Amino acid sequence: MSFKDVLLTDAAHIQARLDAAMAGLSDQPVVQAMRYATQGGKRLRGFLVLESARLHGIAAENAVSAAAAIEALHAYSLVHDDLPCMDDDDLRRGLPTCHVKWDEATAVLAGDALQTMAFELLCDPALGSEKARLALVASLARASGAAGMVYGQALDIAAETASEPLTLAQITELQAGKTGALISWSAQAGALLAGADPAPLARFATALGLAFQIADDILDVEGDAAVAGKRVGKDADAGKATFVSLLGLEGAKARARALESEAEAALAPYGASAATLIAAARFVIARES
Amino acid sequence: MSFKDVLLTDAAHIQARLDAAMAGLSDQPVVQAMRYATQGGKRLRGFLVLESARLHGIAAENAVSAAAAIEALHAYSLVHDDLPCMDDDDLRRGLPTCHVKWDEATAVLAGDALQTMAFELLCDPALGSEKARLALVASLARASGAAGMVYGQALDIAAETASEPLTLAQITELQAGKTGALISWSAQAGALLAGADPAPLARFATALGLAFQIADDILDVEGDAAVAGKRVGKDADAGKATFVSLLGLEGAKARARALESEAEAALAPYGASAATLIAAARFVIARES
Repeated sequence: MSFKDVLLTDAAHIQARLDAAMAGLSDQPVVQAMRYATQGGKRLRGFLVLESARLHGIAAENAVSAAAAIEALHAYSLVHDDLPCMDDDDLRRGLPTCHVKWDEATAVLAGDALQTMAFELLCDPALGSEKARLALVASLARASGAAGMVYGQALDIAAETASEPLTLAQITELQAGKTGALISWSAQAGALLAGADPAPLARFATALGLAFQIADDILDVEGDAAVAGKRVGKDADAGKATFVSLLGLEGAKARARALESEAEAALAPYGASAATLIAAARFVIARES
Repeated sequence: MSFKDVLLTDAAHIQARLDAAMAGLSDQPVVQAMRYATQGGKRLRGFLVLESARLHGIAAENAVSAAAAIEALHAYSLVHDDLPCMDDDDLRRGLPTCHVKWDEATAVLAGDALQTMAFELLCDPALGSEKARLALVASLARASGAAGMVYGQALDIAAETASEPLTLAQITELQAGKTGALISWSAQAGALLAGADPAPLARFATALGLAFQIADDILDVEGDAAVAGKRVGKDADAGKATFVSLLGLEGAKARARALESEAEAALAPYGASAATLIAAARFVIARES
């Protein structure tokens, strides 16, 4: 199967698990908004969970709840990030954002409940031993909380009112929290489920996460809003420092390619079985949305 | 020790655990807001965790992370509930609310990270076996998510635009989610930590949670804003159905007293060792803030 076929198959599997997790909920607007916010997207984080699990001999059905968990957590972060008081985005994945389609209160609550659902999904006995599940809960909490994703978002907010644009070191730190922490958790999840050493996957994910954000900044300059499904050019419009503004367009592309090589090298211990993860790294650099 | 002394001692213990959980975090406004939002309050939910643990022979140091977790989760719900798009409250525990003291984006993120921190606290090895900790994570996720607390908040939002005031059955269902679910989790936490049957504590908590909300509605009519530390009379001003509007003031007081008796009766299996929990139930009915 090609990487793109694996991504599509995994996405369908993850969607089914998310739908099942919400099947018993009352049909309130908050629940409708939760379902809406968990539709679509590339499911790259969920794919990383399933692929790192396969790398350790764990079948998709014994990892899909963790893949659904990270996608629920990612969806919560997008719903809250799009709010008027945050990035104030009206378009996401080509559709109106939650607070536009419903209202702000519903979007706040839907995001809150999606975060909760992520931790509930990690308690699924299909994921294996209590020890493995608790390791996933603890590491996801660290990756997504005030020392991880929220820390990156806080730096992002602070940057908006800072008198000086961010330096490369500051942007790298911001990205490591805002995007990198969840990507890193996803890539290590399979090793955690298997009780294996997550270090090679952690190195892979650090390079991949940074490459992902650089590619995002390149897309913001070169991308097509119709393909991206969201506003483009907004960082430049806002005068924000990005990897492109700091490194130049060609410099940013060269850095992304170097990171792709780093990501591939980190997977050497896995040999040929890491081919799909390597294809994923290439896809992340070359993607158009 | 009198119940009030136990409550004060427990509150100090819980505060120290919350402070320790946030000690290593970077001093961003989001983290300042998290610290601010976890100051003060009666700590009734945390007390219920510690007291139900004591009832099962579990020392406070082996339960305090669970007590801190429920207080972090409660604090997140208050920060988000106070937002302009939700209840739009400017005063909480006698102080400006988070979005007033900082801004809305900081309040959204601080609430998000407090929820995450609650689940991180439940992973603390001091709480015992992986099985017990995972049981706490799974049950707190159920109690606080779209089938629990957020469900109650969604019903509360829907009620604001409903053409008819809520019935007694509807208000009871709303309360069971919005306030009851976390109180119920707190009272059962000690039994879950000990691997004991949580049924008597669940019955106690169902009565206590409803009595708590009825007392809240009575306070909203009779209370003193200076003592309550928040606006009073706002439900009546908003024309909202409450237990007082549906049962009358005397009817609501009688119902609260009946629930107090129910709560006491549920604890009969614990005999004299439940005296502090019984005192807590009496306090909840008679409190002035």
